Amino acid sequence: MDYQAHLDTALQRLHDEGRYRTFIDIERKRGAFPHATWVKSDGTEQPVTVWCGNDYLGMGQHPVVLSAMHEAIDATGAGSGGTRNISGTTVYHKALEAELSDLHGKEAALLFTSAYIANDATLSTLPKLFPGLIVYSDELNHASMIEGIRRNGGAKRIFKHNDVDDLRAKLAADDPAAPKLIAFESVYSMDGDFGPIEAICDLADEFGALTYLDEVHAVGMYGPRGGGVAERDRLMHRIDIINGTLGKAFGVHGGYIAASAKMCDAIRSYAPGFIFTTSLPPAVAAGAAASVRHLKTDQELRERHQTQAKILKTRLRALGLPFIDHGSHIVPVIVGDPVHTKLISDMLLDQHGIYVQPINYPTVPRGTERLRFTPSPVHGPDEMNRLVDALDDLWSHCALNRAELSA
Amino acid sequence: MDYQAHLDTALQRLHDEGRYRTFIDIERKRGAFPHATWVKSDGTEQPVTVWCGNDYLGMGQHPVVLSAMHEAIDATGAGSGGTRNISGTTVYHKALEAELSDLHGKEAALLFTSAYIANDATLSTLPKLFPGLIVYSDELNHASMIEGIRRNGGAKRIFKHNDVDDLRAKLAADDPAAPKLIAFESVYSMDGDFGPIEAICDLADEFGALTYLDEVHAVGMYGPRGGGVAERDRLMHRIDIINGTLGKAFGVHGGYIAASAKMCDAIRSYAPGFIFTTSLPPAVAAGAAASVRHLKTDQELRERHQTQAKILKTRLRALGLPFIDHGSHIVPVIVGDPVHTKLISDMLLDQHGIYVQPINYPTVPRGTERLRFTPSPVHGPDEMNRLVDALDDLWSHCALNRAELSA
Ligand SMILES: Cc1ncc(COP(=O)(O)O)c(C=O)c1O
Ligand SMILES: Cc1ncc(COP(=O)(O)O)c(C=O)c1O
Repeated sequence: MDYQAHLDTALQRLHDEGRYRTFIDIERKRGAFPHATWVKSDGTEQPVTVWCGNDYLGMGQHPVVLSAMHEAIDATGAGSGGTRNISGTTVYHKALEAELSDLHGKEAALLFTSAYIANDATLSTLPKLFPGLIVYSDELNHASMIEGIRRNGGAKRIFKHNDVDDLRAKLAADDPAAPKLIAFESVYSMDGDFGPIEAICDLADEFGALTYLDEVHAVGMYGPRGGGVAERDRLMHRIDIINGTLGKAFGVHGGYIAASAKMCDAIRSYAPGFIFTTSLPPAVAAGAAASVRHLKTDQELRERHQTQAKILKTRLRALGLPFIDHGSHIVPVIVGDPVHTKLISDMLLDQHGIYVQPINYPTVPRGTERLRFTPSPVHGPDEMNRLVDALDDLWSHCALNRAELSA
Repeated sequence: MDYQAHLDTALQRLHDEGRYRTFIDIERKRGAFPHATWVKSDGTEQPVTVWCGNDYLGMGQHPVVLSAMHEAIDATGAGSGGTRNISGTTVYHKALEAELSDLHGKEAALLFTSAYIANDATLSTLPKLFPGLIVYSDELNHASMIEGIRRNGGAKRIFKHNDVDDLRAKLAADDPAAPKLIAFESVYSMDGDFGPIEAICDLADEFGALTYLDEVHAVGMYGPRGGGVAERDRLMHRIDIINGTLGKAFGVHGGYIAASAKMCDAIRSYAPGFIFTTSLPPAVAAGAAASVRHLKTDQELRERHQTQAKILKTRLRALGLPFIDHGSHIVPVIVGDPVHTKLISDMLLDQHGIYVQPINYPTVPRGTERLRFTPSPVHGPDEMNRLVDALDDLWSHCALNRAELSA
């Protein structure tokens, strides 16, 4: 058995399809976000501006977050030293769970080491709790949901993206007595479009289904207290399980679900991905709790964030650059083929010190390869000018289409 | 569909079987490990000594670890702000991966958010790289390995625990041309027994199989540089993929694999559990790297750890208490039924301020319910005396058997 040859084949396939990933090595400067140092593979350094991060609000450098982390390290040390059941539940974990259940208006919340594992562990455990469960899953759901839904080979129906008619048809085709769950997202991160939360909740009521909403790209940023799009639209009480991350707008790390006390208790008791792993470091829980708490009141930061996205879109529109606009904070500029996307990304980095990672198939459909910009309150007018000018130059230089895909 | 009733049933089942888990809420005191504060459900506090943590060496309070974390927070902030591919690869992640590949004498290492996800993601991805892969898995392998092996429904054979004859028979029964992988652990954490690494490597050679070794309960603690049991036994070069955690003896958080450059590159490129999740906070990576680096030379700490385990075992033996002894650092005292195990654990906590979580089915087989002690260099003679005296008292008080299971 030639294992090397198999590895070569698997790697060559990625090179051939132009989707072999090379990671860019950066270090952001605390207090100077979005500025960072790019450490090249030859060891030399170059200053860059990060335009593709998911620390959407810059909370990763917020003093309340950092001092909570410092304090927790001084008080209790580095790691938790155990799984949640065996010495790894601390006052920091409990405080964070209380902060999160309050954020979402739910009886309880359950922390995981990431939102990836929160999705995977929860969705793969629900069929154990509700035998015969049928999961209805939006076709553009995140990999972590797909993995969770597929894991135990339970029944699933994939509905067309955001298509409530298709979802209705699929719900209607199944046994009315079967337990059902509809899994979807509030903000789809690659296009920045919103899930039809209310319409899906209506269908859930009609067909007696549970609702599972991934608010990973919305928590902290939408709703008067940062509870997400469901909070903004006053629909939180209609969602049975809300999934969120502490690693994007909250600027730290970890993930969670918020739900009824019984639901959280059952997942806590049955999900291997929750049970059999070291709990988050207390300092991470402390930083995240401080961030969640802070964003419950800092509406101004949320507004500045939205304003930044609007400014960037207005300026791109003026130049006729093709981007997708669904009114969210995510600004995907469509290049349309992997070669040019990579080329522009490289030129932005090398010549302009602007770091935006190319997004290719399979993360997005072929032909929609893109640069995904995430303007944030830490991007000042100078950074914005430099980005827009650089894009204008490169679009001309590469003779790329303008305005085609602009919505 | 009465979802509440299903949740009630699922939870009642755990209560009925006496295995509903209640988490104990504690805060360890940095600089005073293993001392901690237990926060009871009524909000009152009581000082306790933690005897069941997996921060085996007390590295979670080591100054080199804590200052590396503080420094990283000050330099670069809280979270990484992205997945490894999209702005979440930092100099801290790269430095830690370099530390780990060096530790295990491998070309490369790949960081995950936990060893749970490292096992799950790697083992579920290998069948994609080696079509037709048959996985031979020790029956006592950790939940995270089981989940990974089961995930994609590939071929698997479960061999009897540590039974190389059974493993040989299963290897011999399969198509010699099929790709094969043997997955096992170096230290099984509930009994503290060692996997037969050399014999398994011999079989792997004979049958052309890859080897996958979980060293989660060994890294940092065994081998002249803390590379694990395979390092101690000079077998690291014979293991294709080593899995380890940064959350136990290294005292921080996260997990990894170490393997050939090509293997790591392929897992990096194909494993959803690696790709689609926010990378570890830089400060966590920095703390872990400092810990790994420190333990490459602090042989004295490793020796004190082993001495502590030997002292505890000698004293338990003198009292005729039934414990399992395979010569490792883990000291499981067998009670043998869930009710007494819980009772003793409760009495230790309430009356003696000694915290050791009861371990019940399904984590261990029924009839072997136990208290699993993890003596460490931070447990001084006073703590040891108090523990031994308390156990002696309780054993008499509860009229429990002595010496039956002592090996
Ligand atoms: C929609 C969605 N859900 C879940 C996740 C996973 O979150 P985390 O980074 O906390 O694992 C991500 C991205 O990482 C995501 O985009
Ligand atoms: C054998 C074994 N492998 C893997 C893990 C998972 O490690 P981590 O806590 O880093 O997720 C554990 C325990 O948590 C374990 O006991």
